[in-house]
Amino acid sequence: MRLSEQRVCIVGLGLMGGSLAAALQGQCAALAGYDNDPAARSQAGELGWFDSIAPDLPTALQDTDLLILAVPVRTILDILNRIGRSLPEPHMVLDIGSTKADILAAMESLPSGVDAVGGHPMCGKEMSGIAAADPDLYRGCRFVLCPLERTQPGTLDTAHKIISLLEAVPLVMDAERHDRLAALISHLPYLLAASLVQTASTLGANDPVWDLAADGFRDTSRVASSSLAMMLDILLTNQKPILDALSTCQALLNDLSDAIEQKDEQRLLDILEPARETRSSLFLPTSETGETT
Amino acid sequence: MRLSEQRVCIVGLGLMGGSLAAALQGQCAALAGYDNDPAARSQAGELGWFDSIAPDLPTALQDTDLLILAVPVRTILDILNRIGRSLPEPHMVLDIGSTKADILAAMESLPSGVDAVGGHPMCGKEMSGIAAADPDLYRGCRFVLCPLERTQPGTLDTAHKIISLLEAVPLVMDAERHDRLAALISHLPYLLAASLVQTASTLGANDPVWDLAADGFRDTSRVASSSLAMMLDILLTNQKPILDALSTCQALLNDLSDAIEQKDEQRLLDILEPARETRSSLFLPTSETGETT
Repeated sequence: MRLSEQRVCIVGLGLMGGSLAAALQGQCAALAGYDNDPAARSQAGELGWFDSIAPDLPTALQDTDLLILAVPVRTILDILNRIGRSLPEPHMVLDIGSTKADILAAMESLPSGVDAVGGHPMCGKEMSGIAAADPDLYRGCRFVLCPLERTQPGTLDTAHKIISLLEAVPLVMDAERHDRLAALISHLPYLLAASLVQTASTLGANDPVWDLAADGFRDTSRVASSSLAMMLDILLTNQKPILDALSTCQALLNDLSDAIEQKDEQRLLDILEPARETRSSLFLPTSETGETT
Repeated sequence: MRLSEQRVCIVGLGLMGGSLAAALQGQCAALAGYDNDPAARSQAGELGWFDSIAPDLPTALQDTDLLILAVPVRTILDILNRIGRSLPEPHMVLDIGSTKADILAAMESLPSGVDAVGGHPMCGKEMSGIAAADPDLYRGCRFVLCPLERTQPGTLDTAHKIISLLEAVPLVMDAERHDRLAALISHLPYLLAASLVQTASTLGANDPVWDLAADGFRDTSRVASSSLAMMLDILLTNQKPILDALSTCQALLNDLSDAIEQKDEQRLLDILEPARETRSSLFLPTSETGETT
């Protein structure tokens, strides 16, 4: 079935769901939207990207072939568990939640007429809400797909078509691997950024600490302003990989702390030089100003 | 004495010293430059910003009224200790090293005819070397000044004139406070960024971990690519404030780790919500894409 023949419903009218709608409008047989927040529904309605905004979840799902779940992870789990068995069949489900193992386990329990695939686009913004939505948000970003063993080729194909429409880059991997890598690339940076802000806040409380904050601090701390609803769900559905990442990182910080205390220059170099080399090879320097020296 | 009547010598022809020269050219009686790296001297000579490039340090200092030290901290200490007593008098010295307490202690030992003030502009780039120099590098940045008790008003005034020429914003504070705040705002972010890169490198070694790295990781890790010569000197001349910052940050990471392990949502919120609020109030969201979800 072509995407242009499918009736699509996006549940979750925030930044990610809104940006998806902005890119998908006019490309499917019908585009419906739902959010449990009435204000988000009314904002989404005014944007004109949707053919309909449903007043409740059952109505949203009534005349839909493809359901896209663009809500925080625990809400995705709740929806799959609550309404998975009452979805009209045949039905396709794609989610774009930030962790994948728990969601794929819930997808395994869907009825045989409901075919699902997990997804995770590696993009976002520090702003949330549909007001910040942008049809180009997904352009060029890696869009991870985690199929179940039972996922039908047609469903995977539809997911690839959506990724292609978004001009994103598909990357297929299993959920366990995704979650382990996302812990390193996304969840650990968030915890470090938040701890950095809290450390500066606490120890700099009686000083003009923020007056000295320039580009280096701005960038290192940026993801600390991520949506808490999203981040709490991530932290609570990806415990083991995050705890492993934290533990390795803390061991490195302990090593650095010891080396600084002992003025052990060689030990500092052994940790910091490979980090510098790796980071320099990953991204080209930007024109923006850099380290706050 | 006006800046236009002063013969200025910049020692250190890297990004910072080069950018200073680009902004100061034509504004002083003479602008000399020196670097112990012959390649940097020859590059600087070709740029045409200097009236002369000295072949050695004694020559550089011969006909100079104001010496600006734009080298890593331990090189500044070495120069002050080695040639401080042989500087022509009267003489002014301004340094732009990243930590201030040790440098100010060395400045205290200068002869009475050599008047000094410590400085630290809170700017930089992830690129180093005079090829990346930019006359606008200092524009809008905070330029911390740390005077000694013995610093003469004329010397402080000259430093303020330079800051004004650079279109930077002066901020006077004592060296101890500067070093404590710089540990929070600059040195801790560097150690976190380097540890993040090494953690992802180590735990993601057999996986396509960098394929998933998007804007969030790019920004959180950026300062890991800072110059090691600069960073080692910082870490080894600001031990106590850095160890204090690391210790507070590690305690927070331990708390977060425990809370994740115990699925203690309230405890997570108690740390993460104030961090989100603080970070969001400090910087306006940029148009660039944000958290890697």
